[in-house]
Amino acid sequence: MANSRSGDSVIDRLVRVLATFDRDERVLTPTEIARRAELPASTAHRLVGDLTAAGLLERDEEGGYRVGLRLWELATRGSRALGLREAAIPPMERVQARVRQHTQLAVLDGDETLFVERLSHPEAVGNIAQIAGRLPLHASSSGLVLLAFAPADVVERVVAGALPALGPETITDAAALRRKLAEVRRLGYAVAPGSIEAVATGIAVPVREGRDGIAALGVVLPRDAGDPLRVATVLAAGAHEIAEALAAQRSRSMG
Amino acid sequence: MANSRSGDSVIDRLVRVLATFDRDERVLTPTEIARRAELPASTAHRLVGDLTAAGLLERDEEGGYRVGLRLWELATRGSRALGLREAAIPPMERVQARVRQHTQLAVLDGDETLFVERLSHPEAVGNIAQIAGRLPLHASSSGLVLLAFAPADVVERVVAGALPALGPETITDAAALRRKLAEVRRLGYAVAPGSIEAVATGIAVPVREGRDGIAALGVVLPRDAGDPLRVATVLAAGAHEIAEALAAQRSRSMG
Repeated sequence: MANSRSGDSVIDRLVRVLATFDRDERVLTPTEIARRAELPASTAHRLVGDLTAAGLLERDEEGGYRVGLRLWELATRGSRALGLREAAIPPMERVQARVRQHTQLAVLDGDETLFVERLSHPEAVGNIAQIAGRLPLHASSSGLVLLAFAPADVVERVVAGALPALGPETITDAAALRRKLAEVRRLGYAVAPGSIEAVATGIAVPVREGRDGIAALGVVLPRDAGDPLRVATVLAAGAHEIAEALAAQRSRSMG
Repeated sequence: MANSRSGDSVIDRLVRVLATFDRDERVLTPTEIARRAELPASTAHRLVGDLTAAGLLERDEEGGYRVGLRLWELATRGSRALGLREAAIPPMERVQARVRQHTQLAVLDGDETLFVERLSHPEAVGNIAQIAGRLPLHASSSGLVLLAFAPADVVERVVAGALPALGPETITDAAALRRKLAEVRRLGYAVAPGSIEAVATGIAVPVREGRDGIAALGVVLPRDAGDPLRVATVLAAGAHEIAEALAAQRSRSMG
């Protein structure tokens, strides 16, 4: 059994193993993990054993493995996602009570939109955004808001990069994206009809801390549902409540 | 710089580093991490660097480190905590609208109560349970429910182990704990007044899957608040909804 030559390569492999699991593949065999992580079977088996011993993976009755609650606990307890979602859940519930479709909260992470919370009505319109899921920044109203209030270097990287079409009306042209971002800054909200699903419209507003945007609060509605400005007003009130709750958290933690 | 001799020791150290962070200490310096993880400074610094490079830790502007969103994402996406909380949030909101104090969901993990979700009213009574926080099984109404419906070996280990007093009325006697568990099985709910805080009462019911208890749905109320049976009835309706939502998730994932 070969030893790892340095700690960082173990961490890289650990990330590759953990990244093989997702919402649709919550239980995997060691062989599936090895294939999806592109690791030799012996390496994957050994790492799965070590991760299971540490509680980071759990073995089920049929011999499959899943992400362990211990890992979720370690990752959640100190995470800014936890503080953010605690501040956001009550305002999101108030927004959701009005829109009764999808209400979601996203942050900018690694030049992508990372969704940290979502409330969904059981009969809501289709929405591919998922908790702990990612989307490209240009492809949703939440991402457009995050990008509009992001540092200039992030904007330049995204505008210069690939702008794949995720739906019939995704903005895929750099100049059109710049114009859209200027519009979002001017209006204070983003509307993205058909950016992902032809039948749905995303509307999002920034959660601001001073001049910075620290998150995007958004909804996904059926294409024909109501006046975007009216929805944006409901969202802006929610975003303001989230910002106030975050400020209260910070003053408590410093007190 | 010494290389790690095998992957598992890197994972052990990684868990020790991640476990240094918690809700009250979300940002730590490498020196604080080394001290709290009981690791040599050079080892801790190197591991913090590797974890940061992999996105599992994040560096803030002042040179402190915090748990990275990438780790939260990997830990959440495939976790059974995610499916459980998605099934539980709408019923929990309905319970919370009735009790307007604390409504929480817990699972059994490693012979402890692990809280996976909590909704709290801003002016609610004191409650030490926290999301991704743990309590001993004998010390709260949620834990008593989990223990009452746990496998016999778990019950024997807990009853034979230390039963520390967390509050004025925590059950600390093995025979009294056995009687309490029998009562919980007979009534279908647990009431734990003063088990943690003298002024608060916990009330919890099992979320059942067949004959197994897979989670506990509970509330924490002021000591003088209402009839436990009436509250337990509200909780039982919520627990039934959660079990149905979980069954629907499973049939969707198999469909």
